[in-house]
Amino acid sequence: MISHFGIRRREFVLGTVAAAASGAALTPSSAKDLGTPASGTSLPKDLQWKADDALLVHSANTIETKRSHAGRSPITPLEELFVRNNVSPPPPSVVADPDSWSISIEGVKEPAVLTVAELKQIDIESVACVLQCSGNGRKFFDHNPNGTAWTVGAAGCILWTGIPVRSLIQKLGGVASGCQFMTGTGGEPIPEGLDPNTVVVERSVPVDAMEIALLAWEANGKALPLAHGGPLRLVIPGYFGVNNIKYIKKLAFSDVESQARIQANSYRVTPLGGKGSTEFPSMWQMPIKSWIRDPIETTKSGPVQIQGVMFGGEGGASSVEISIDGGASWKPAKLVGPDLGPYAWRNFSFSVDLPPGKHVLASRATDSKGNSQPEHMTPNDRGYAHNGWRAHAITITAT
Amino acid sequence: MISHFGIRRREFVLGTVAAAASGAALTPSSAKDLGTPASGTSLPKDLQWKADDALLVHSANTIETKRSHAGRSPITPLEELFVRNNVSPPPPSVVADPDSWSISIEGVKEPAVLTVAELKQIDIESVACVLQCSGNGRKFFDHNPNGTAWTVGAAGCILWTGIPVRSLIQKLGGVASGCQFMTGTGGEPIPEGLDPNTVVVERSVPVDAMEIALLAWEANGKALPLAHGGPLRLVIPGYFGVNNIKYIKKLAFSDVESQARIQANSYRVTPLGGKGSTEFPSMWQMPIKSWIRDPIETTKSGPVQIQGVMFGGEGGASSVEISIDGGASWKPAKLVGPDLGPYAWRNFSFSVDLPPGKHVLASRATDSKGNSQPEHMTPNDRGYAHNGWRAHAITITAT
Repeated sequence: MISHFGIRRREFVLGTVAAAASGAALTPSSAKDLGTPASGTSLPKDLQWKADDALLVHSANTIETKRSHAGRSPITPLEELFVRNNVSPPPPSVVADPDSWSISIEGVKEPAVLTVAELKQIDIESVACVLQCSGNGRKFFDHNPNGTAWTVGAAGCILWTGIPVRSLIQKLGGVASGCQFMTGTGGEPIPEGLDPNTVVVERSVPVDAMEIALLAWEANGKALPLAHGGPLRLVIPGYFGVNNIKYIKKLAFSDVESQARIQANSYRVTPLGGKGSTEFPSMWQMPIKSWIRDPIETTKSGPVQIQGVMFGGEGGASSVEISIDGGASWKPAKLVGPDLGPYAWRNFSFSVDLPPGKHVLASRATDSKGNSQPEHMTPNDRGYAHNGWRAHAITITAT
Repeated sequence: MISHFGIRRREFVLGTVAAAASGAALTPSSAKDLGTPASGTSLPKDLQWKADDALLVHSANTIETKRSHAGRSPITPLEELFVRNNVSPPPPSVVADPDSWSISIEGVKEPAVLTVAELKQIDIESVACVLQCSGNGRKFFDHNPNGTAWTVGAAGCILWTGIPVRSLIQKLGGVASGCQFMTGTGGEPIPEGLDPNTVVVERSVPVDAMEIALLAWEANGKALPLAHGGPLRLVIPGYFGVNNIKYIKKLAFSDVESQARIQANSYRVTPLGGKGSTEFPSMWQMPIKSWIRDPIETTKSGPVQIQGVMFGGEGGASSVEISIDGGASWKPAKLVGPDLGPYAWRNFSFSVDLPPGKHVLASRATDSKGNSQPEHMTPNDRGYAHNGWRAHAITITAT
């Protein structure tokens, strides 16, 4: 069983390094300038409420926040939050009366089916945490992995409100004995004629995650929109987006992981050319990460505030260093705004006098245990979890 | 000079009591049921982006958040934030290119006129704080004061981003010697033929406020809208809304208060029938306050989460008690969500089993120094700063 929990240790290899990192300089030409990838199409009809000028529409189901907007504030406006759907969502009618949505709780001493209205009277909590797609940063891998070529904008920090899963489970008598996993099942309709296991959005996480998880009906003080999983979404702070099951219909505790393809085969950290299976780590906890979002193209020379965002790592990001010479030298940045807890991101700003010319700006975050971003991210087949600071660096011109 | 700073001490009389408060019970019939005052008109044309269902439109310049929405989340969505203008704002064109807006800084060693673009490169900070109209709660006074009859919804908690005033002043050599006040002047156009002093929105606060003040260009991660003071607003955490000058054109330090009517005569805590003048306390710091926002009319009997919000007081609200019997007995509520700092509000929830029938629900907040809300608020002529817990109590029916 321990291998299922292995992501935590393996990601240390995949996505973190000891605090003393390489000081090798990055030449301007070797840094990718990915500040403003071109937008493909326009916002789909049901997402017209989104902020067009802050988003890049890759497809109707894959919409990215522009780097200039990704991490601008401690809380991401919903209008600017990325959209990523694996399959088609339920009809909009499910959010017309959110309180009537029901969820089945299984693998507990007293299984129950409860409506959102009932959940709301049991307990309530608000948690700020980063929602990030496993493939965020995929474009920074050199092997051109399959999947959406996200740069930094498949991530946002959201203030969720809902019922703590631990309070709900306590009310239902506790988890049945021997359960090692908590499994959420999404309410997406399964098209007829298909093997449900190949389509269902069903993800298992270590049972301990119930201590921090929320069943959320609100985001940023508003009823959760359909695009982000309303009426009810499982939120697991610190875990990649795919585990945060939208329109959740079932929460079950069991001794084995789900056999659904999205759990057993997909979202696995596999070597290049490898096929996903349970022998490889699942996309669970997010490694430490940071990026600069301003400036990302040009800026006036002279006094400049270099701004960005950092998050993740065991215990949350605690500090971040900035380089204006492609990694040859580093200085600490100032943290900006309130600390919204270990699962939220933190904005940073670095005050510097930039002479005219090209500059390669990089950021490198460190958590409270001394884990920091690696210089390079070891490639994995599907291009998950990129957090290498060198590829996230950006070349700008001061005029 | 000390009398100008007197609000801090006087509000202790006006708006706080020692922690051991009266235990007298409130009968259902004596509690005002002000949960859902009727909406007057509809949203004005330029505020169509606001959430109609969360707001009560008193007039085009006075729009209140409904009690059911007021304090629902640690951060108030801008769409649900109250609107209050003393005079007509500048034209919308001023927010078309926010970076070109300029502000004059006077009463410092090196006076300067700076654009927002320039401010952005000096320093940056984000602060969460409550924005509350001085007259919030006016409807709870019995003497029917002049002015909008706000209940609880002329308040919100906003995450502001801008430049700390102290960083700006430090860059300009510091405050000129002998200055006791910091004065902000709004950019509202002054109609021809009127004495500017009777119209200008210009407020002075004790110079110490510069240590916590911000010149903000962003709210909740978005460019500050015109309705809330964009392109640039003075934000003074812990101070009533009127001091948070919108479209700020000038920030000046001086040894005397502004002579503008809004400072010298208006926004003063005067006795009933009294005329405002500098002999009375100015509406500066906000006293401690709380209210319940759910349930406010009817609820199902059985398990109920009584939810609300608290803020203010010296050092921020630290705890809140709930009564379900009109103040005869009190129990502590649970605080909900992250602590966004001493100037932000905090949500609370109280888990209770309510039998069928009428119940009078009340909340009473206490700060870290032991100051708590008074049972009754001593009336003042204009109906400012009501924070008495009894008038904020609400009668509900459990079915």
